[in-house]
Amino acid sequence: MELPAEKLEDIKALMALFEEPGSLDGGGVTRLGYGPAEDRMHEIFRDWGEANGFIAYTDAVGNSYLENDAATAAAGEGQSAVLVGSHLDSVVRGGRYDGVAGVAAGMACLKWLREESREFPLRVAAFRCEESSAFGRSTLGSGLITGAIDGDDAADFTDPEGRTLREVFAERGLDLHPQKIEGVSAYFELHIEQGKVLETLGKDVGVVEAIAGPRRFRIVIDGEADHSGATPMDMRSDALCAAAELILAVEKIGQSEGRFRSVATVGIIKNYPNVMNVIPGWVELGVDTRGIMPGSFGRMEQRIRIAAEDIAKERGVEITIARQYEDLPRSMAPQLMDELEQSARSLGAQSHRMMSGAGHDALSFADLVPTAMLFIPCRGGISHNSNEFTSDEAICTGAMVLCDALARHSTGART
Amino acid sequence: MELPAEKLEDIKALMALFEEPGSLDGGGVTRLGYGPAEDRMHEIFRDWGEANGFIAYTDAVGNSYLENDAATAAAGEGQSAVLVGSHLDSVVRGGRYDGVAGVAAGMACLKWLREESREFPLRVAAFRCEESSAFGRSTLGSGLITGAIDGDDAADFTDPEGRTLREVFAERGLDLHPQKIEGVSAYFELHIEQGKVLETLGKDVGVVEAIAGPRRFRIVIDGEADHSGATPMDMRSDALCAAAELILAVEKIGQSEGRFRSVATVGIIKNYPNVMNVIPGWVELGVDTRGIMPGSFGRMEQRIRIAAEDIAKERGVEITIARQYEDLPRSMAPQLMDELEQSARSLGAQSHRMMSGAGHDALSFADLVPTAMLFIPCRGGISHNSNEFTSDEAICTGAMVLCDALARHSTGART
Repeated sequence: MELPAEKLEDIKALMALFEEPGSLDGGGVTRLGYGPAEDRMHEIFRDWGEANGFIAYTDAVGNSYLENDAATAAAGEGQSAVLVGSHLDSVVRGGRYDGVAGVAAGMACLKWLREESREFPLRVAAFRCEESSAFGRSTLGSGLITGAIDGDDAADFTDPEGRTLREVFAERGLDLHPQKIEGVSAYFELHIEQGKVLETLGKDVGVVEAIAGPRRFRIVIDGEADHSGATPMDMRSDALCAAAELILAVEKIGQSEGRFRSVATVGIIKNYPNVMNVIPGWVELGVDTRGIMPGSFGRMEQRIRIAAEDIAKERGVEITIARQYEDLPRSMAPQLMDELEQSARSLGAQSHRMMSGAGHDALSFADLVPTAMLFIPCRGGISHNSNEFTSDEAICTGAMVLCDALARHSTGART
Repeated sequence: MELPAEKLEDIKALMALFEEPGSLDGGGVTRLGYGPAEDRMHEIFRDWGEANGFIAYTDAVGNSYLENDAATAAAGEGQSAVLVGSHLDSVVRGGRYDGVAGVAAGMACLKWLREESREFPLRVAAFRCEESSAFGRSTLGSGLITGAIDGDDAADFTDPEGRTLREVFAERGLDLHPQKIEGVSAYFELHIEQGKVLETLGKDVGVVEAIAGPRRFRIVIDGEADHSGATPMDMRSDALCAAAELILAVEKIGQSEGRFRSVATVGIIKNYPNVMNVIPGWVELGVDTRGIMPGSFGRMEQRIRIAAEDIAKERGVEITIARQYEDLPRSMAPQLMDELEQSARSLGAQSHRMMSGAGHDALSFADLVPTAMLFIPCRGGISHNSNEFTSDEAICTGAMVLCDALARHSTGART
C-alpha cells in the first residue's frame, strides 16, 4: 500500500522521540520496568501528549495515558473510550521496537484522527513493566490495573538486586491494589510480530486470532553412566540417546498439531556428566508447548507422555515428566478481528490471520473487554535482541490500519 | 575355581597395605600422579619388597620396581626378565582397585613363585601417573620410560595448579629424558575391567585382544535461534532437533560396528541459548568412537559424516565435524593371550576374550615387547569413582591365572 509522506514523517518523528533512554553502545537498549530509563520513556510520552493538546496522566501503578477531548467528555458522561496500549520497557539489551512501536502507533492515531476531524473517545496507554526481565513476571502494569495479576501475589516479586515490588512501589508512592481500570469499551494493541511468519509470507499486517498459552514440562531421563570405551553398545542405558528420541518425538508432535497452530519445542537440555569418556547417565529437558486450542494442548501432553513411556520401556531408562507452568490461551474478539481485516483491505494492506506465540499486555485485557492485536513484521523475526528491527514504513502501515479500524469500531461502520 | 586360603590371605594383606594414602571420607581415594599420596604408595610398595627379600629401586622418572634374584642374576648376564606392571595413582575421588589390584597381583606372583620354588626372572613395576587427572595426559611414567611419550612434549604438561611437568621433575630430581627401559622380554598387566562385560557374562577373567584407540570428534550444528512461541514448526532450523538425529545416527553406527567390537558415544552436548522460550540455534557435540580395527574406525567416521550431511541438507542447518584426537589401537601378543587362556583353563577359571576400551600402561609397552592384559570383573562396571569395588577373591583368581601364565611363558610350557 502507498503511505502518505506526512504520515510516514509522523511515525519517524514519534519513534525518534523515544531514542535516547537506556541506549547502549551497539544499538540496543536496556529499559527495565520501574527503572529510570523506563521513567524517562513515560515522561517523553506524557510530554508529547501535553505539547500536542492531549490530556496526560498516570494511574496508581505508574502506567501513563493520553486521551483526546472526546474521551474526556465521554468520561464526564460516564461513557467509555477505546483504549490503544502497549509498553515502553525492554529486556536487558533489547530492541527499540518491542512495545514502543505500539505506543507510537497509538500516539499517531490520536494525532491523525484529530487532523482528519474524525475524533471519537480514544485513550492511549503506555503500560509499565511488560517484560519479565525486571521482576520475573510479565505484564505487571496492565495486569495489576485489570486485576489479571493480584497485588498480594505481586508484592513479593523481586528484581535482580533482590528488591521486592512492595519496596519499589512504596518508594514510588504507587499502590499494589489499584482501582480496576474503567471506561474501556475495547482494547487494541499493535506490536511487532517477534516471529518471521509475516516476513516469510510477505504480508503487511497480522490479525491475531488468539494469544497462545504456554504449557511447560521438565522431563528427567535416568539412565546409567558407564565408561564409553569399556561398555559395549548392547549393555548401555544411554540417557542422551533416550533424550534424542524424545526430542524428535516432541518435534513430530508439534508438527502434527501444527494445523491447530500449536508448537512444541525442547529449548533446554542438561546432560550429566557431560564428558567425552562417559556414557550420559542423566539428562534433563525443558519442553515448551504453546497453542490456542485447549484440545491440542491436551493431545500434545498425552502424546509426549506416551512417547516417553515407550522410550523408557524400549531403552530401560526411567523418564519422569512434571508440568512446570501453564497459562490458558486467550481468544481475540472476532468483531475486532473483522474490523482490522476490513481496514487492511480498504487500505490495500495484505493481512494474515495468525496466533501470537508470545504474551502481550493484550492478555491482561482479554478477559475484561473485547480485545484485538495487530502484528507488523520485524526483520528475520528477531526480537529481545539489539538486532531487532522494523521499518518506519511497516510501523506506519500498521498504524494506518489500526487507526482506520478504531474509527470503524467507534462509528460502527461496516464495509 | 577354588582359591587356596593362604593365597587369598596374601591378596587381602597386600591390598590392605595400600589402604591409607589419600583416603577420603566416603570410601574413595585421591592419589594424583607425582603427588604425596602417590609417593607414599610407592614407598609402601618398595618397603614391602625389601622386607620380603626382593630388590627395590626406582627409575629416572620415579617408577618403582621390585625384582627377584633370578631377574637380578639374569640382568648381570645381559638376559631379560618378564615385567608385570600397573600403577598406584588415582583420579580425583577415585577407587582403590584401579591400578592397585594389578600391582598387588604382581607382588603376589613374586611371593608365590618363590614359595613354590618356581622362580624365573621376574620384575614388578609400579608406574607413575597413569591417570590423566594430574597432568592432562595418561600413562606418563610408563610412556616416558618406553619412549611412547616424548619428554620434550611432556615438559609443558601442567597440573591443575599450573605447574609444568618440567618444574615438578626438576624439584624431584627426575629426568624427562630417561634411558629407555631394557631387559624386558614380555609385559603382563592385570587390571580391573572398568566395564561390566565380565560381570554380565559371569566370567572370572578377561583376556584382552587389543586396547582400543579412541578417535574423537567435535561436531558443531548451526541452526537458527527463534522465539519458541512465535515460530511455526515449518519455519524452524532447530539445531537441537538436528543434534538429536545425529546422536541417534552415532548410536546406530556404533551398534552396527559392534560386531567388530567398536563403540560410538555422544558424551558431550552444549546447547545455546538453552532457555525455555528460544528454539536452540547452536549445538556442540563431543563424539567418542573406539575400536580395535582400523577399518571399523574409518567406516564409523565416514558414516557419521554422511549422516551429518544428510541431516544438514534435510534440515537446512550447517554441520561441521572436526577430528579432535586420535590414538591407534594396539593388539596384544597372540602367544601371551594363549598362555593366559591356557592358565585360566588349567586352573578352572572362566575366561573371555575381549577388547579394552580404556587405555592402560600396557599401551606404552605394546610397540616394544610382547604385551598382554588380564581383566578381572568389577562391580557394576563402576570405576573412577569411590564406589569402585572388586572382591579379594576376584583379584586372587586373576593373580593366580597371571602367575601361572608367567611361569608358562618363562618355561615355554604348553598344555
